[in-house]
Amino acid sequence: MVIVLKQNPDEQKVEQLIRRLRGMGLKIHQSRGQHSTLLGLVGDTSSVDIDWLRAMEIVESIKRIQEPYKNANRKFHPQDTVVEVGGAKIGGGNFCVIAGPCSVESRDQLCTVAAAVKQAGASMLRGGAFKPRTSPYAFQGLRGEGIKLLLEAKKETGLPIVTEIMDLSQLYLFEQVDVIQVGARNMQNFEMLKELGRLHKPILLKRGLASTLQELLMSAEYILAGGNQQVILCERGIRTFETATRNTLDLSAIPALRAMTHLPILVDPSHATGHAEMVKPMAMAAAAAGADGLMIEVHNDPANALCDGQQSLTPAQFSDVMQATQAILPFACR
Amino acid sequence: MVIVLKQNPDEQKVEQLIRRLRGMGLKIHQSRGQHSTLLGLVGDTSSVDIDWLRAMEIVESIKRIQEPYKNANRKFHPQDTVVEVGGAKIGGGNFCVIAGPCSVESRDQLCTVAAAVKQAGASMLRGGAFKPRTSPYAFQGLRGEGIKLLLEAKKETGLPIVTEIMDLSQLYLFEQVDVIQVGARNMQNFEMLKELGRLHKPILLKRGLASTLQELLMSAEYILAGGNQQVILCERGIRTFETATRNTLDLSAIPALRAMTHLPILVDPSHATGHAEMVKPMAMAAAAAGADGLMIEVHNDPANALCDGQQSLTPAQFSDVMQATQAILPFACR
Amino acid sequence: MVIVLKQNPDEQKVEQLIRRLRGMGLKIHQSRGQHSTLLGLVGDTSSVDIDWLRAMEIVESIKRIQEPYKNANRKFHPQDTVVEVGGAKIGGGNFCVIAGPCSVESRDQLCTVAAAVKQAGASMLRGGAFKPRTSPYAFQGLRGEGIKLLLEAKKETGLPIVTEIMDLSQLYLFEQVDVIQVGARNMQNFEMLKELGRLHKPILLKRGLASTLQELLMSAEYILAGGNQQVILCERGIRTFETATRNTLDLSAIPALRAMTHLPILVDPSHATGHAEMVKPMAMAAAAAGADGLMIEVHNDPANALCDGQQSLTPAQFSDVMQATQAILPFACR
Amino acid sequence: MVIVLKQNPDEQKVEQLIRRLRGMGLKIHQSRGQHSTLLGLVGDTSSVDIDWLRAMEIVESIKRIQEPYKNANRKFHPQDTVVEVGGAKIGGGNFCVIAGPCSVESRDQLCTVAAAVKQAGASMLRGGAFKPRTSPYAFQGLRGEGIKLLLEAKKETGLPIVTEIMDLSQLYLFEQVDVIQVGARNMQNFEMLKELGRLHKPILLKRGLASTLQELLMSAEYILAGGNQQVILCERGIRTFETATRNTLDLSAIPALRAMTHLPILVDPSHATGHAEMVKPMAMAAAAAGADGLMIEVHNDPANALCDGQQSLTPAQFSDVMQATQAILPFACR
Repeated sequence: MVIVLKQNPDEQKVEQLIRRLRGMGLKIHQSRGQHSTLLGLVGDTSSVDIDWLRAMEIVESIKRIQEPYKNANRKFHPQDTVVEVGGAKIGGGNFCVIAGPCSVESRDQLCTVAAAVKQAGASMLRGGAFKPRTSPYAFQGLRGEGIKLLLEAKKETGLPIVTEIMDLSQLYLFEQVDVIQVGARNMQNFEMLKELGRLHKPILLKRGLASTLQELLMSAEYILAGGNQQVILCERGIRTFETATRNTLDLSAIPALRAMTHLPILVDPSHATGHAEMVKPMAMAAAAAGADGLMIEVHNDPANALCDGQQSLTPAQFSDVMQATQAILPFACR
Repeated sequence: MVIVLKQNPDEQKVEQLIRRLRGMGLKIHQSRGQHSTLLGLVGDTSSVDIDWLRAMEIVESIKRIQEPYKNANRKFHPQDTVVEVGGAKIGGGNFCVIAGPCSVESRDQLCTVAAAVKQAGASMLRGGAFKPRTSPYAFQGLRGEGIKLLLEAKKETGLPIVTEIMDLSQLYLFEQVDVIQVGARNMQNFEMLKELGRLHKPILLKRGLASTLQELLMSAEYILAGGNQQVILCERGIRTFETATRNTLDLSAIPALRAMTHLPILVDPSHATGHAEMVKPMAMAAAAAGADGLMIEVHNDPANALCDGQQSLTPAQFSDVMQATQAILPFACR
Repeated sequence: MVIVLKQNPDEQKVEQLIRRLRGMGLKIHQSRGQHSTLLGLVGDTSSVDIDWLRAMEIVESIKRIQEPYKNANRKFHPQDTVVEVGGAKIGGGNFCVIAGPCSVESRDQLCTVAAAVKQAGASMLRGGAFKPRTSPYAFQGLRGEGIKLLLEAKKETGLPIVTEIMDLSQLYLFEQVDVIQVGARNMQNFEMLKELGRLHKPILLKRGLASTLQELLMSAEYILAGGNQQVILCERGIRTFETATRNTLDLSAIPALRAMTHLPILVDPSHATGHAEMVKPMAMAAAAAGADGLMIEVHNDPANALCDGQQSLTPAQFSDVMQATQAILPFACR
Repeated sequence: MVIVLKQNPDEQKVEQLIRRLRGMGLKIHQSRGQHSTLLGLVGDTSSVDIDWLRAMEIVESIKRIQEPYKNANRKFHPQDTVVEVGGAKIGGGNFCVIAGPCSVESRDQLCTVAAAVKQAGASMLRGGAFKPRTSPYAFQGLRGEGIKLLLEAKKETGLPIVTEIMDLSQLYLFEQVDVIQVGARNMQNFEMLKELGRLHKPILLKRGLASTLQELLMSAEYILAGGNQQVILCERGIRTFETATRNTLDLSAIPALRAMTHLPILVDPSHATGHAEMVKPMAMAAAAAGADGLMIEVHNDPANALCDGQQSLTPAQFSDVMQATQAILPFACR
């Protein structure tokens, strides 16, 4: 961490600050120039509150050198984390596809889709029981009933299930759920992250619409710091000025996160683009760039889906995407 | 609502769609051109699921004409909503300033600040008991204890209090809180919004970092649709590429929201800019543009604040901002 | 085009408007609802000035149905455009790699790099003679001298050359240049686009940092409307809030543009990411998603490059990227 | 400037780098920690090429301390720059309103508007002769003829004129123009900026749609470095995800720029919001926040304007805005 002091700072205050920082076990190097003075802090600065420093009268700005996340940091954990779910492995060179309907609508719908995605090669089943909808007048999900149907589909197909939690009060319903998904809108629901950090269950953490990669890792850090090491990251598009797609899929997040963290990285091309016909090229691109897997929406009858039909693939389209992606995998970036 | 059909659509499917829409009580007008066919839907389209239409094979795109929010819509409620809290009124031409520390740190700190902001003319006291922090290693707030201190400060000063809820499990602690704040990160925490819609208590709803004004109103709609009509909106900056400020304060949201909705509109220049020295000009600008009030962070000792000291005003600075803003008010846009 | 009228519009003005639109050869369909009236315009609306309509007192909003670009529109030109440069073909299933240094620095540097990229399989040589630099104190390019060196390198290697024009006054120097590049900052330099539309030479048009895909096509339309049909589009990252990469590479632009236009689409992973180590995964992703080619920065000594060394590959790294990308191509999305 | 070295860097290369930096007259301070080594550079680092450093193998990242602009920097020129145009003064506590039509359409139109804005209190006349339009099919301006009409209107009313240059080849037509405007799309047209730096004429430099404030100042620096000290900055809205307004007006740019630079700062609420009814509140807000002036579009008949009618005020509306703004001025932030 480097502290840039204002021009002609009060010397007494500078001395006080240096003493206080030394008291925290840090070594301080001063560099005095004509227009600015720098304090270089060497040692473990993760406990130094950057807000406290920024508010000081003598401080102009703070430049962070060390990343503010530790548990998620590849520097301190060079080995890839591999999350195991049922037979499926995510991370460390394994490729995992999670597929299923946007929302669970009925036993029939779910089991039809589950069987289809299994046959096409998916390793997990997704399906929303609790649905975050922008409008209070839109379908809000089957809720507890949806979780039951997911568990039935799991029993029938053997596929582990992934489903989203929207509020901690729903947590008791997730006991038999294999992977709990934290949606983009809850990426910074810190109370939820803390609670999920106490579980022994994989958490699929989606990037927020306006979240930087560092913020995504800080949210992962909440879960990891609580003791739960099974965190799977998921890039699903960020909000930009472009309107041709629902969001802007940031595939450079794959190599960027790969360097920053040891956690596995999935890509959700369905929510990112919002258009069924763009799912295939983006799934292939994600695989080529070295993603650890995909999350894809599949519906037996997209035109009658209760939610996000426009971005859902039919089982036949999904099977085509699986084949196209599998063909890329042997040549993917590693 | 206008449905744009693809070129040469399957006539039978078009007929089916039209029949189904007529079954919903809508009138349909067709316009056939060389390259596209339009269906104009007339009537109450708020119950038509736009996702369902978008997913149809024959549909190219949907153009919404009617706003998707009803309770929040000024068209249906031309009169300004006025929210009353203790003696303070928000909306309808009243100007209300909410001030206090970013986070409640101690009895002394809170009462000192509360007395100071009251004297300077604030009508409500703010203070965070539950603090959403990007880092799990940063101060997380005094929580239940913080609420108790706020209630003491309320007793001492007579100022109504505003404080943020981070999770529904904390709701029982908010019984005597005058205004419950929903933070930017929870603007689309729909389960929370639904629950708050069942209360008879004012809700201060902050705009999300990546939320459009329409989405802000859709979130307000969740609360209003539940029966709680006391919603106060708050612009607090959006996320953009600019780094000179913490966020980009969108003051054009004031006239834009004024036209879209009857709900009162506050502005938080502290979180928007992230710099104490920018709070005054932005508070004055918000007042001039016709905001219904301000939310400002004040701390007795910003350099030692446990949170956001950089953007906090001292009591003396706040008093200066109050005077500068009061001077603008008689000439403000209405 | 659909015109949404305000509530209770002045009937006489509505009649006037309808007459005027009919006078333009359009058919008008009216749909009257309780809260709004729609006018559906059928016919060729590309000549209708949307600004003129928007400014009318009786008009609430305009919804475009037809795209505002014609020459660039795939609807009217279903066949892929193939641009031929020397022996190289761009578009229509051909894959073309343009490589070379960010800026031309010397004869030695350029010829070394040119020979290396040719050997690795590049089909064209790039190199900046005129350099757009944020700072007036940074290296501004060798200018006319740089063009000469490019022509020498062309002679030596046989590779066609691509270089950027920054101002029309430089145009006379580009006579023997094979492809003229319009940089991101000039995408909406309309005077330049008009002039380039009069040439018979391929134009490589880079997407602006804050430009939508539709705006990119409108800029292409300027060139096409002038008579020059040889336009190559290039996605090179857009500006977002994320700071881990220089820009955010929008690979979904590939399928999106593919559907909108018949023009070829290149991807520049060097400028998009700003980091040499991210060029390979993003080049592979672009190939997998179906891009028509790549534009990549290569330098014989990146650590001493006068410009953008951080994102430049060494010849060895470039050769590795070429092989990795070639391996993907047979399985790429089409 | 602080250079952060990678873990365990090659010692020889570090020594080389240090020697080279010392050779540039800089003092170097080293701070060695367990995980990173810092080099603090003290002295005039404006000539150090940050790209050159970033590309080095041993360098992890660079943190700038000094601003990269000098001539525009308030640190080195604490006094406000005041630009004088005819009788009007811009900057240094003077408030200046530039008003007129988006585009010059005819002698009648221009003279009517010019007389009206003069009477309402405007100090300069604006009007576009060369018009940057997204579509090649939209009205492109009267060009040279438009400049002539502006000069006639100047003669008639005595108002100095401001008009936009789109390409350097038009420069000869601007000899009698009082202020040359560089539009948002040309903010980084560096060849144009260099040329305008050689003139002795005020330049109105508009902020680009995706430009940071630092980039705006770097563009100003191009003009200043050429010797032309008469630069006026203009905030006109940036591109964000919000669609309720044409752009997002960033009024916090006023205090932010005020601290960074000595140059005067105007605000253009017409282009920023894109809606005539939002011009008044935003003009008032800009005045309250301490802007040095406004640029506002006025048209005698907005419904028939050839360009941007939707955001143009009638003369009566403009007169109302002038009065409302004048009333705010005595209480504005300074």
